[in-house]
Order: sequence, then structure tokens, then C-alpha cells
Amino acid sequence: MSRLDIIELIERKRDGGTLTPDELRQVVAAYTAGSVPDYQMAALLMAVFLRGFDNDELVPWTEAMLHSGDVLDLGRVAAPKVDKHSTGGVGDKVSIPLAPLVAACGVAVPMMSGRGLGHTGGTLDKLESIPGFRTRLEPAEFTRIVERHGLVLAGQSETLVPADRMLYALRDATGTVPSVPLIASSIMSKKLAEDLDGLVLDVKVGAGAFMPDEASARHLAETMVDLGAGHGTPVQALLTDMDQPLGQSVGNANEMAESLDVLAGEGPADVVEVTFRLGTEMLLVAGVAGDRDEARRLLADARDSGRAMEKLTDVIAAQGGDPRVAADRSLLPHAPHHHEVTASRAGYVAACDAHDVGVAAVRLGAGRSRKEDDVDPSVGIDVLAKRGDEVESGTPLARVAYRDPDRLAAALPLLERAWRLAEEAPDPVPLVLGRVG
Amino acid sequence: MSRLDIIELIERKRDGGTLTPDELRQVVAAYTAGSVPDYQMAALLMAVFLRGFDNDELVPWTEAMLHSGDVLDLGRVAAPKVDKHSTGGVGDKVSIPLAPLVAACGVAVPMMSGRGLGHTGGTLDKLESIPGFRTRLEPAEFTRIVERHGLVLAGQSETLVPADRMLYALRDATGTVPSVPLIASSIMSKKLAEDLDGLVLDVKVGAGAFMPDEASARHLAETMVDLGAGHGTPVQALLTDMDQPLGQSVGNANEMAESLDVLAGEGPADVVEVTFRLGTEMLLVAGVAGDRDEARRLLADARDSGRAMEKLTDVIAAQGGDPRVAADRSLLPHAPHHHEVTASRAGYVAACDAHDVGVAAVRLGAGRSRKEDDVDPSVGIDVLAKRGDEVESGTPLARVAYRDPDRLAAALPLLERAWRLAEEAPDPVPLVLGRVG
Repeated sequence: MSRLDIIELIERKRDGGTLTPDELRQVVAAYTAGSVPDYQMAALLMAVFLRGFDNDELVPWTEAMLHSGDVLDLGRVAAPKVDKHSTGGVGDKVSIPLAPLVAACGVAVPMMSGRGLGHTGGTLDKLESIPGFRTRLEPAEFTRIVERHGLVLAGQSETLVPADRMLYALRDATGTVPSVPLIASSIMSKKLAEDLDGLVLDVKVGAGAFMPDEASARHLAETMVDLGAGHGTPVQALLTDMDQPLGQSVGNANEMAESLDVLAGEGPADVVEVTFRLGTEMLLVAGVAGDRDEARRLLADARDSGRAMEKLTDVIAAQGGDPRVAADRSLLPHAPHHHEVTASRAGYVAACDAHDVGVAAVRLGAGRSRKEDDVDPSVGIDVLAKRGDEVESGTPLARVAYRDPDRLAAALPLLERAWRLAEEAPDPVPLVLGRVG
Repeated sequence: MSRLDIIELIERKRDGGTLTPDELRQVVAAYTAGSVPDYQMAALLMAVFLRGFDNDELVPWTEAMLHSGDVLDLGRVAAPKVDKHSTGGVGDKVSIPLAPLVAACGVAVPMMSGRGLGHTGGTLDKLESIPGFRTRLEPAEFTRIVERHGLVLAGQSETLVPADRMLYALRDATGTVPSVPLIASSIMSKKLAEDLDGLVLDVKVGAGAFMPDEASARHLAETMVDLGAGHGTPVQALLTDMDQPLGQSVGNANEMAESLDVLAGEGPADVVEVTFRLGTEMLLVAGVAGDRDEARRLLADARDSGRAMEKLTDVIAAQGGDPRVAADRSLLPHAPHHHEVTASRAGYVAACDAHDVGVAAVRLGAGRSRKEDDVDPSVGIDVLAKRGDEVESGTPLARVAYRDPDRLAAALPLLERAWRLAEEAPDPVPLVLGRVG
């Protein structure tokens, strides 16, 4: 692609025009090959941010990203292959109990997860709180584990979708992250490279999500469902609440423990419910359940029989982790100090801002302010009062596990403002706001 | 300026917000210093392209560019210092006769010109058709020549306004050139760095100009006049026609020859008129003429007395050129071959598309397709039929001076479509469409 050609494409998108499938394929290929420099792609991304992509542009753009590197070949896996992707939230550990539950029902789950981003946590960081657990697998090992166990829990392979890694880093540096077509193509190119028979999306809505309102979340969900259809892969999306953190634990080791609780038949009701709702969609899309009732029964049996916990334990061992954590949570790292945040007056919890709690967790060290930061798996926040709960003055709202008093001091102002108390109990908010697909 | 700060600025401009003067100064300084990379500036430029700058942003942005390098100190020049800038056109050689005419009237003209850009010609390229003439002067030599002669004709010094050189190259590669605030700040930062007492702008309008219509040209003119006022430098702008080429010659040596014709009291009427209109504004802004009639008399006397030609001859010699070209045009380079383009039928010339003629000249080698191309000073086009002229079938429309038959073949299709013939004579179009300042 010549210098003049790429400039012409930037100008056309800048002026609200449309790029052809061939042009889009060429620009993604040339960028990945290094012949279109970052500054030209940055200008094009900003033009796309402000002018958008229509569906005839988004499908070839996403396909070009998908084919920028290797694509998994899971042809030797006989079971239907289904993954789940969440757009990210606070306390969203659902992947960890969900994947073994679904795998224990006979669906292969080749799960590729991400790290914490901004104020949100990441499944990889949570999994790595298990001593010895390796999330970085070569494609051959990834394939071998999913062939053997019907489940693998790993990071994105370096050789898959290099265009997304390059584009994501550039978007992160150029103010072009929160764009529906760019988010949708980033997610879907990676998921479609996993050689799936179906995909379930959890599109988070609310203060702690990247999509603050239901309309924008629905638009993103529809865009991704359409991309799946364009590729021939069935996609189902649920819109779920992320105004307050999901579950009780926000952090890494504490979220891992809560995930194990769910597999043990315990855990907070909201985490259990989101896990079962997403699991139901995965079994339906995989064709292993005929209806929602059957799907829920299969999932409950996989949990109650202990098969799901066993599946996870096997995969932890296969990926180098200490499988004894399933029975002994004390093997997970623990922070040395604790601090309680209490209610300053009596009332009902009207809101617990997931964004504030998420940023507080990052400040404690549970997430990253800069990409190169290390995560401290032991620190985190337990959310003790959720929306609708009645509290007295002095009732604990949160329990903070911390290591560094300076980091606690940086986190506290956010926690002290995150809870909003009211005289009246708030109207209940549904956990699942809608379904697209 | 930290990485997060620049991202926040990009996001704010992307969303239609306003940057503060301090932020704008910091981002220009950081970009010039290399601590803001090209890809972040490219994203910001595209956001500015699509969202604009208001005047409170444009003044500090332009001042920051102006102060990104050295600023000329012409304090030892007693005469008022006035320059002219044209937004660029086809056949626009006006600077070359204008500068010595005005200098011969007692105004110091420290003229810094540019090279051909896109389909437009550049004064530097035209001047360099004079054997030996050097347009690249160190600031000390530039200052010495203007102190001695009241006139210098040079390129932009490398040490002046480095931010513009960097931003211009980036805009050129990222589809962010035709933006009124970015054009205005580019022009005005360079001109204000010349330590001027006044500036006259020739804002071209029409097919061969960067501003295709009068409204956008007027908007650009007003923006630049406002920037001058913000800096305390009086600026006058004329909007002039660039639908058809100016004068007869389009090229380099042929435009140099036509410029000498004007100083010798000859030359095409349109070139003479634009030269005198701009010269009038320069004498008025310099305060050496009290009104337009007096200004025109002074200019005519400078020409008719031979003082303007003598002034140019002195400066050609001072800048290493062969001063005998003034009396002997055969010393200018000549192309070996000629070709005539003729009318295919009888009629009136309704239009002669300046853009087509400009691109044809570039294809012949009179301009550059790529920045690193050399210009052939000898090739070019003489426009023999202009708007309103009546032609017979076979009447010559243009005479092409060429060296390479392949280049002629590439130029001819443009020349064959550039002339539009009609049954009726077109309505006359004024040469000067308006005045701003």
C-alpha cells in the first residue's frame, strides 16, 4: 500500500466516506507488516472514532485483524467449542467458575482471557494468584490441554491477532479506545481466532463498565452479534448490571476464593446467578441443552456433583498450579493488614459505585496504573454492603486487605465516597438487563 | 507533559472540548522537543481537523509554534518591514515582481518563500531557475542582505519555526492538511517569525487554489487577520481568482521570465494587476503611501524608472545568481521540445481549469510528485487562451515545453480536458474578489 493510497483512505474516512473491503484488508495488513506507520494509523483511528464504520466496513476490518496472525485449529476437539467474553467490570470473576461448569457439561471451553485494564480486573491476574499457575501457553500446549480436558484458561497467544495487539496499544495512547466499532473488532477478532462453534458475550452496563448506559451497551452487543453472524459463528449477548461490583470480593486472590466458593455451591447470589445465566446461554449455543430449564439443571448437577470443581482442579494442575487451593484457600496469598470502611450514618445503600471501588483496588495494588506495573495478588476489597442493604451508623461497608499504608491512604477517599446512603430503600435493579442475539 | 496528560488533551478535543492556552503551549513544546510522539500528535491533529480550534485556542497554538525556534531580529532595518504571502496557485509568480517593486518604494521586504506543493508552483523553485541563485541563506546572511538592499528572496530558515516543519510533514502524511486553523497557524507562525511591521495575504480562490470557494477563502483570510491582530501585527488580505492560471506561464524558468517582463513594463495584464493590487496594500500597511492612488503611482514609478528591476538585479547578484538574466532571458534554461495543444472546435473559453494545468506541469517535471523529486526548471506550459477568449478549431490553447516524451504523454490528458469551450462568452469574473482586514 503506497503512501498516497493510505493518505487517500484517511482523507475519505475523515470526510465521512466509506472504505472498500479490499482497502480495509490492505490497510490492516500493511499496518501489521509495518509499512503503514503508527502516525498514519493514529489519524485513521481518530477519523474512524469520529466518523464510524458501517457494517460493510466493520466485517472486513475485523476479518483482516483476525487473519493478521495464526488462527487456532481445534479440529481434533470433538465437543462443540464455546467461549465467553466479558467487556470488563469490577468484581467480575465469573469466567473462573463458569468455564469449568460448562466444560463439565460436555462443552469444550478454550478460554483466552485478559489482564486488568483501567479500573477493571482481569481473569488472568486472578488465576495467577494460584501458586505456580501459568497463563502463558504456547499454541501447542493450549491445544493439548483443551483436547485433554475440554478446558483451558490462558492468556492471548502472541501469535494470534497481532494486529489487535498493535492497534490496542496505539488506541490506548491516542484517545481512541471507547469507540464501538473499534471495541467490537478488537474483541471479535480475538474470539473468532479461537476456532469456536459459538460465543457468549457479557456486556456490562453501568458506572463500573466501559459502556455507561444500556443503549450504548446494546449497540456494542448488536455490533458484535452482527460480526459473529458475518463470520458464521453464532453469538449470544447478555447485558448485565455493573453499577455496583459483582459479588463481594474485588481483587485477585479474594476473587479466586470466591470463584471456588461458587463451584462449592456457595458464593454470593449475584455471582452465582450471572454464572448460571451465561452458562445457560453457552449450553444452548453449544446445542448440549434443549432449553433453559435443562441447561440450568445440567449446570447445577455439574456443580453439585463436584465434577466442575474436579475439572478446574485438573486444569490448574495441567497449567502448573497447585490444585490443593480448591480444598485449602489458605494456600492463596493473603495481605498482612486489614482496614474497615464503615457507614457514617444509618440508611439504605442506594448505590455502591463500581468505578470508585475498582479504582480503589488499583490504588491498593490489585491492578495496574501503568502497563508495566506488577499486581499484588493478596490485596483487595471485600464489599460488605450492597444496593438495598440497610445499615446503621458504624456498620462495615467494606473490608480492605492491604500491604502498604500509603496505598491504603490513596484508596480510602474513593471508598469513602463510593457508597451512597438514602432514607428509602432503592428500587431493585435486575441483574440481567437484556439479551441480544 | 506526561503520557496521560497528552491523552487527556486528545480525548477532550476529540469530544469537542477546548484546550487551555497553557495546555496548547505545552503540547507544541513537547512535540517539538520529541517527548510527544508523532502518533499522538497525528491523533490530535485529526481531532482538531474535525472539531476545530476556537480563536482562544488558535492564538496560543500559533504563538507556541512561532516560539518553537529562533525569531528573526531585523531591528537594524530602519524601513518598515512588510512581507506578502500567497496561499498558492498555478502561474502565481507575483512575489518575484512584487517584492522588488515594493522594496524600490522604500519598504523592506524580508521575503521567505516556499517550494511547489501539490499542483501549485513555488517561488523558490522559480527563483532557482536563475543560474547560481541561492535561496538557502543562513539567518546572518539573510539579515545582512535585507539590511543592505531592503530586499531578500529566500527559503524558510531551518532554525525558524521548527514546529511548523514537523507539523507540516506530519499533516501531509496524515490527511490533515486542508484545515483552516491548521493552515492559518502554519502560515502565520512562519510570517510572524520574520519580525514584520505588516503582512499582506493573497488568499487564492477557485479550482487551482486550496480553498475552492469564496466562503472558505474568506474564513481562512479572517482567521489569519485575527491571528495577526492577536500578535499586534497589521494584516491585510485580498481574495483573488485562481479558477484559471494566473498570467501565461506555468512552470519555473518561464514564470521567471514573465516576472521580469512585469518589471520591464510588460507582462500579462492579470499578473500586473494582482501585483499592483498587492503592492498597494503593502505600501499602505507600511505607511509609505497615504492612499491607493498614491500607492499605485509610487509602484508605477518604481517600475517605469527601472529602479525595481535594478533592485532585483542587485539582490540576484547578492544571492549568487547571474544578474544578466534581467537583460538576457536566453540565460534561463530552455526545454528542448515543444508541443501545442489546440482547440478541437470553435467557441469561447468558458474555463481553463487551473488544477488540471497545475497537475500537468507537475507531470512534466516542473513540480514534485514526491518531496525528494528534483524540479526541471526548463519545462512548463504557456497558456495561450484564457477565459473569455474566442477560439477557432485548431487555435493553440497551450504551448508545452518538455524534455521527456513520456512525461508529455502523462501531462497531455489533463491539458486536453482543462479547457472548457462554450457557445457563448462567459460572464467576466473579477480578479480581486474581496478584501479582509
